[in-house]
Amino acid sequence: MSLLVKKFGGSSLADLSCLKAVTKVIAQAHRSGQQLVIVVSASAGHTDALVQSARAISALPSPREYDALLASAEQASAALLSLLLIEQSIPAVSLTGFQAGIRTNALHNKAHIESVDPKRIQSHLEAGQVVVVTGFQGENLAGDITTLGRGGSDMSAVVLAGVLQAEACYIYTDVNGVYSADPKVVPTARRLTQISLTDMQQMAQLGARVMQQQALDYCYQHHIPLRIASTFDPDEGTLVTRDAHNPSPWVGVACQSNQVQFTLTGLIDWDALVVTLRQMMRNAMIDIDLIIQSHQGDAHCSDLNFTVHHDDYEQTLVIAERLCGDFNCRSVESQQALAKVSLIGKQLMTQPSVATDILSAASQLGVTIRWFTSSDTRMTWVVQQDKVKDMACLLHQSYLGTVSLTA
Amino acid sequence: MSLLVKKFGGSSLADLSCLKAVTKVIAQAHRSGQQLVIVVSASAGHTDALVQSARAISALPSPREYDALLASAEQASAALLSLLLIEQSIPAVSLTGFQAGIRTNALHNKAHIESVDPKRIQSHLEAGQVVVVTGFQGENLAGDITTLGRGGSDMSAVVLAGVLQAEACYIYTDVNGVYSADPKVVPTARRLTQISLTDMQQMAQLGARVMQQQALDYCYQHHIPLRIASTFDPDEGTLVTRDAHNPSPWVGVACQSNQVQFTLTGLIDWDALVVTLRQMMRNAMIDIDLIIQSHQGDAHCSDLNFTVHHDDYEQTLVIAERLCGDFNCRSVESQQALAKVSLIGKQLMTQPSVATDILSAASQLGVTIRWFTSSDTRMTWVVQQDKVKDMACLLHQSYLGTVSLTA
Repeated sequence: MSLLVKKFGGSSLADLSCLKAVTKVIAQAHRSGQQLVIVVSASAGHTDALVQSARAISALPSPREYDALLASAEQASAALLSLLLIEQSIPAVSLTGFQAGIRTNALHNKAHIESVDPKRIQSHLEAGQVVVVTGFQGENLAGDITTLGRGGSDMSAVVLAGVLQAEACYIYTDVNGVYSADPKVVPTARRLTQISLTDMQQMAQLGARVMQQQALDYCYQHHIPLRIASTFDPDEGTLVTRDAHNPSPWVGVACQSNQVQFTLTGLIDWDALVVTLRQMMRNAMIDIDLIIQSHQGDAHCSDLNFTVHHDDYEQTLVIAERLCGDFNCRSVESQQALAKVSLIGKQLMTQPSVATDILSAASQLGVTIRWFTSSDTRMTWVVQQDKVKDMACLLHQSYLGTVSLTA
Repeated sequence: MSLLVKKFGGSSLADLSCLKAVTKVIAQAHRSGQQLVIVVSASAGHTDALVQSARAISALPSPREYDALLASAEQASAALLSLLLIEQSIPAVSLTGFQAGIRTNALHNKAHIESVDPKRIQSHLEAGQVVVVTGFQGENLAGDITTLGRGGSDMSAVVLAGVLQAEACYIYTDVNGVYSADPKVVPTARRLTQISLTDMQQMAQLGARVMQQQALDYCYQHHIPLRIASTFDPDEGTLVTRDAHNPSPWVGVACQSNQVQFTLTGLIDWDALVVTLRQMMRNAMIDIDLIIQSHQGDAHCSDLNFTVHHDDYEQTLVIAERLCGDFNCRSVESQQALAKVSLIGKQLMTQPSVATDILSAASQLGVTIRWFTSSDTRMTWVVQQDKVKDMACLLHQSYLGTVSLTA
C-alpha cells in the first residue's frame, strides 16, 4: 500500500465549507486505498488573531511563548479536521508536532527540523487511520514547542514525506498549480502540467511564492515528487519532479516587488567587502540578491549594488553604513520602490539577443531598465515598482505566450 | 522560600485588560519573594467558540479530538499570560499539561489526574521563573491530550498544590470570596472571611458553584488551605481551611435550580431498587440526590422520589422506566421546574424547630414546600422553580441575616 503526504494551507482550512472540501479530497484518496498523512496549517485568520493578541502585549514578544501561542492554532485546525473526517466515517487521528515526533533545533520562531521519529505516525497508519499532523511546529530538545517560520508547513510536509518514504507529497493551496507567471500580473499566464524541481526552485527563489524555497530543496535532495493543486479543484494541478521534461528553453516569469537597491560608492577592495557583506547579511538572516559591480569613470574605484526586500531596509542600512566605514567607501545610497522581473529558463547563455531585444521593446513601452543581469538559468531586469506588470507581460508575451506549456 | 499555586479562571483571562489585572496579582506575589505556579483556564469565549466549531461538525464529536481541540485554548491563554509577564520583566514560562507532567487516565472529556511528575516545574521554579501551567488538561498513557471536564482547572490547581507541597492554593474568579448565599439570589448575603473545608464541601455539593466538588475533596484529604478571591479585588476573599472556626451553627444557604423530581410508584422491594438505581445512575455519571420514600395508604407499597438536574432528564427517564419494569412498579412520574434550597450548618439535629418555623413562614409567603429533608449538616426544601428567591431569602433572613459571619 502506498503512502501519500497531503498538505493543506490556511486558506483551505478557513471555515467549515473549506474543511468539507479538504475532507472530500482526503476521502477520495482514503477510499482508493492510500495510506495518508495530512499536514495542516492554522486556519486563515486564526494565526493573524493570535499574532495581534501577542503584538498588543509586546513589540518583541518572547520567542518561546510566541511559538507556544501560535502552535495552538494548528492544533485546533488538526483537531477540527479530524473531527470532520471521523464524522464522515473516515478513521482519523490528530497529532501535534511533538506527538508526531518532529524534533527541531532550539531556534524559536524559525526552527529547523532536525529529526522525525516516525513510530507513532506509522502505528496509526498501520491501524488504518488517516493521520492529521500539525504543520509549522515541532519540539526542541528542551521539550519546548517551536515553530518553523514562514511557509513552515511546507517543510513539515516534505520532511514527513521523506522520512516516511511517501510516494509523493501533495501541496493543496488556493491556486491550482504552478503558472508560467502570476496570473494576477500576467493574465495570459498558463498553468504548467509539470515542471522540474530545479526550474521550480528558480521560480520560487525569484518570487513565485507557491512553495517555500527550503522545502523545494529538500524535495530535490530526497527525490520526493510534488504535486501542487487546489483544494477546491484537486484534479487540475502541477507535477513537480526532478526529471520533468520541458521542450522549451523558457520556463516562466517571476516578479519580486518592493525591492530596495543599495549602492556603496567609491569602493577599493571589492572582493573583501562582498565577503563581509554576505557574512553579515547571512547572520542577520536577510536574503540578498543581485550583487553587481559598476564603475563610474575611476578604474581603481567601483560601486557595489545589491537589492533587498523593503522589509529588511532598516537593518540593511545599519549593515551598509558599518561596511562603508570599515572599508572606507565614499557613500551609501539607496533607492526604493523598485522591482525585479525575471525570465527563467535553461541554457540562456545561448540566447544572447534577448537582452537587446527586450531593452528596445521595454523602451517602446516606457519602461526604464535600471539594471540587467543574467546567468544560464535566469535573466533579471530591475525596473520601477509601477512598471512590474508591463515588464512581466512583455517578457511573457515575447517568450512564453505562444509556447505550449502543457506536456 | 514558600510556594503558592494561583489559579485564574476564564473570566479573569477574557481580554488584555483582564490579563493585566492577573499580572498585577502575580507581580505583587513574585516581588514579595514567593515561588509561583499559575494555573490558567481558557479565556472566556475562546472555549465557547471552539465548542461551537466542533458542534457545527458533529453532534457527538470524537472525544479524543474534542480534547485536542479544547486544550488549544488553555495553551493560548498560558502563552499570552507568559508573554505579558515577561514584557513586565517577570521571568515566566508556560507549560502545557503534558509539559507540566500531568498524567491522567484514558477517559477523554472527563479524565482524572493520576499522577504529576513535578521535575520540570521544579526546575523552572529553581531558575526563578513563574511557571504558568494550562489547567483542565493532561496527557494519558497513550500520549494523547485529555481534558478534565467541568471545573477541571480547579482540580489541576489543587493537585499541583498537593504534589508541589505548596503553602496554599489561591483560586481567583470574578467573585471576591464565598458568600453566605448567592448575592444574585439573596441581596443581603455576606462574604465569609473564612469557612471550613467541610462546610465549603456542603455548600458546593448543594449548589454553590464557587469551586469544583472533587477539588475541594482533594484539598480536604491533602490538607491544602485554599483562598478564594477576585482577580480584580485580590485583597478581599475567603480563606478555606480544615479548621476554620465558625461560632454559629449556620453556614449558608445554597440553591439548586432546574431540578426534576422523579417518582416511582407502587413499589414493593424498596431497598433492592435503590441499590440498582444508584448503580445505574453512577454508571451514567448522573448526580442523584434526595432519595425519599413515601407511603400512599398501602403499608406494603411505597413510592420512591428522587431529583436530578434537568440536563439529565432524558437519560434518567430511560433508567427509571427500565427499573419500573424490572421491579414491577406501578408507574414513573416526573415533575419539572423545581428547585432545591438548602440551609447548611452544624449539628442541625439539635434545631428541631426549624422545619416547622420555616413551613409556617413559607406558607405566609405563598411558597409551597413540596418536600423537606434534613441531616445533621443540611436541611433541604424542594419548591417551585419560581419560588427559589423567596425561599432562599426567607432562610437567610431567619438564620444568617443577623449573625456576624466575618471572623
